[in-house]
Amino acid sequence: MIEYRNLRIALLGGGSVGAQVAALLLEHGEELANRVGAGLELTGIAVRDVDAPRTADIPHELFTTDAESLILGADIVIELMGGLEPARSYILQAINSGADVITANKAVLATHGPELFEAAEQVGAQLYYEAAVGGAIPIIRPLRDSLAGDRVKRILGIVNGTTNFILDRMEKTGESLDDALAVATELGYAEADPTADIEGYDAAQKAAILASLAFHTTVPLSGVHREGITKITHEQVEAARKAGYVVKLLAICERLTDAESGIDGVSARVHPALVPAAHPLAAVHGANNAVFLEAEAAGSLMFYGAGAGGIETASAVLGDVVSAARRHVIGGPGIAESTHAELPVLPISDVTTRYQLTLEVEDQPGVLATIAALFSEQGVSVEAVSQNVTGERGPDQPTATLVIVTHEAKESDLAATAVALAASDVVRAVVSVLRVEGL
Amino acid sequence: MIEYRNLRIALLGGGSVGAQVAALLLEHGEELANRVGAGLELTGIAVRDVDAPRTADIPHELFTTDAESLILGADIVIELMGGLEPARSYILQAINSGADVITANKAVLATHGPELFEAAEQVGAQLYYEAAVGGAIPIIRPLRDSLAGDRVKRILGIVNGTTNFILDRMEKTGESLDDALAVATELGYAEADPTADIEGYDAAQKAAILASLAFHTTVPLSGVHREGITKITHEQVEAARKAGYVVKLLAICERLTDAESGIDGVSARVHPALVPAAHPLAAVHGANNAVFLEAEAAGSLMFYGAGAGGIETASAVLGDVVSAARRHVIGGPGIAESTHAELPVLPISDVTTRYQLTLEVEDQPGVLATIAALFSEQGVSVEAVSQNVTGERGPDQPTATLVIVTHEAKESDLAATAVALAASDVVRAVVSVLRVEGL
Repeated sequence: MIEYRNLRIALLGGGSVGAQVAALLLEHGEELANRVGAGLELTGIAVRDVDAPRTADIPHELFTTDAESLILGADIVIELMGGLEPARSYILQAINSGADVITANKAVLATHGPELFEAAEQVGAQLYYEAAVGGAIPIIRPLRDSLAGDRVKRILGIVNGTTNFILDRMEKTGESLDDALAVATELGYAEADPTADIEGYDAAQKAAILASLAFHTTVPLSGVHREGITKITHEQVEAARKAGYVVKLLAICERLTDAESGIDGVSARVHPALVPAAHPLAAVHGANNAVFLEAEAAGSLMFYGAGAGGIETASAVLGDVVSAARRHVIGGPGIAESTHAELPVLPISDVTTRYQLTLEVEDQPGVLATIAALFSEQGVSVEAVSQNVTGERGPDQPTATLVIVTHEAKESDLAATAVALAASDVVRAVVSVLRVEGL
Repeated sequence: MIEYRNLRIALLGGGSVGAQVAALLLEHGEELANRVGAGLELTGIAVRDVDAPRTADIPHELFTTDAESLILGADIVIELMGGLEPARSYILQAINSGADVITANKAVLATHGPELFEAAEQVGAQLYYEAAVGGAIPIIRPLRDSLAGDRVKRILGIVNGTTNFILDRMEKTGESLDDALAVATELGYAEADPTADIEGYDAAQKAAILASLAFHTTVPLSGVHREGITKITHEQVEAARKAGYVVKLLAICERLTDAESGIDGVSARVHPALVPAAHPLAAVHGANNAVFLEAEAAGSLMFYGAGAGGIETASAVLGDVVSAARRHVIGGPGIAESTHAELPVLPISDVTTRYQLTLEVEDQPGVLATIAALFSEQGVSVEAVSQNVTGERGPDQPTATLVIVTHEAKESDLAATAVALAASDVVRAVVSVLRVEGL
């Protein structure tokens, strides 16, 4: 066995990912040392309670409640606590004591990313976060390195496994959202409080991280338009299926340019969307994640794999450990996060996409002409109309259901159209408005 | 505009990829400089004939026939000439003069990789080759960095766009291989001499590169078992479709371990295989490429995108240019290619997989029992038998076609079974033996 100098690794957090990372570091230590050219010594695991029950077989003496002392002597600090504080403070402490930091914490990156990246650049440290988006699927490194010579145009990501599991199950079984959520909870795909997932907060954090990286621009979490899946009904999912679409919660990051209207910037949004059944993203089932990406030279690429399970996320963390360790062996400062472009972050009203609207209308002559005029007045062009479902129908209140798909339209024009439709005498209800993506 | 120090970039080769790389470097120069923190100056393009007609709009004075002088003054050398010589000599010259080298040349890597990586390690230079496999699809960097903390178990890759186009077209149109190849040639997917593609030489080079990287082991081209697609008939493709499979040319890299038989090493092989229609690789159509990968912790991942078109490959080269440039800005030696494991490279006879055999047999009582006994004698277990096609049938020569799918069996046992079948009185012909992968 070759003898190497040791790199000291401090682990903050002993949850499911932390336990897997510790177990892999201990189990594969020698193999990793050979890959890196340095020993990797796990010096301790900071937890709230050293006596809490643990599943993995980790020596008890590694656990400590004294995170600050642990950080002080470390070459590499792995932050897997989650949440904003004390994660942010510990990351800053680690950076300022000269350590490289690896984190899977999307919340702290989406909220405090610029501060953390700036601190790292000041001292020449590096912040690694492959595990923050898409579990083990390499997404951060391909964006940061592989596509660094290209220009990313658009990212469509399924980046939240919980909501993909729920929507996929609704489609397969015809269950309601509540029933599918109950199954997700039972199987461990959803947490006891599922708000962060089903309201799109988790996906929005990932969208902010991806958009910042792809467009070399600081995209704050507040700049990400966010809609969750809570209003999606099984009727919508079923109607989508019949029309050749699947409903997916997408994180969409786009470079928007339109010389005519002077639009030039980036947009990040998270919302349910209709995806054509033939699109590769439509085939992403269960709790899997995938990122579909369009770049100027590379064309369309897709990265696909399991979402953020403990062991998968640990794989991504260990990859970052090897990168950080190799960097320590070589020496020199880290590569600063690239935000040179600093393009304007545009509101959802500047986005252009296609829409499917479902309307309940009076079933009488001339209604279609009236409705078509309302679209036309807002400059929204209709591609297709179908009267595919008839609602309650009596002698006094004949009702029809219209499904309208538009050509590409500006979000602000579509919003104005929806207001006009809701106010119209012939429209009983605007049942559903969904964006259509991936065409 | 910020002023940076310039990094000098020499380009060897002015073909379709070279022209795209030059155009992108010239067009996006300032943007790339901002990402890197250094100017990227294209100092020249070495070609055989400076006056040959060029499609891209590149200043004539950049072209030169003097590759050696160009290399001498360069910080980064991009080798896009292809072939073994003078590519190998130029790469060595570049490394020994202190430059980092970027290459898309799978032939030189698969043949002279160890020599080139060794030379780079000696002087602390680095060799980048993301463009050598899968065009713009990030594969090399995910394997080298993202999965560096994990253990790769198996790679199933569609790494040759020409053969995937041909097989996909045979399935969709029912055309013969020759007809599909003629279409591929007409559309520019196949070269005038298609041998390297359809005989699997191109895929075998990529398999050697992927296996070396995934298993930290030098896998020479001679260690890759290779079969092309030239014997694939449209009858086979059609029969596969009916049985729920598609025929794909796969590059398969595996970690083989079997305590009982003492097998412990790696295997790399290229051959046509049956892939279940529901497998993600079955959905890779046209000239696209995809790499499906299984790792111990990360689980199953897939990377998908366009194959090796000029512009897509240029995207991968530019990504490597940015990596190399960032490394030059930071300083320090490159990361050596990791071959610490140096596991034995095992022959195809040690591989275990499943097989589909198509036999023409005498149509008489007792034939199935005779054939089943031949499998059993070699220790090969049969999963399913179907008599799905009847051949020519007259009063004198009643013939039936049997399709047999085995459980997992060792390649050497299956080979012995095939020999026994061919020698049997009741078997008129062993029509087809195909491996079944991805189950």
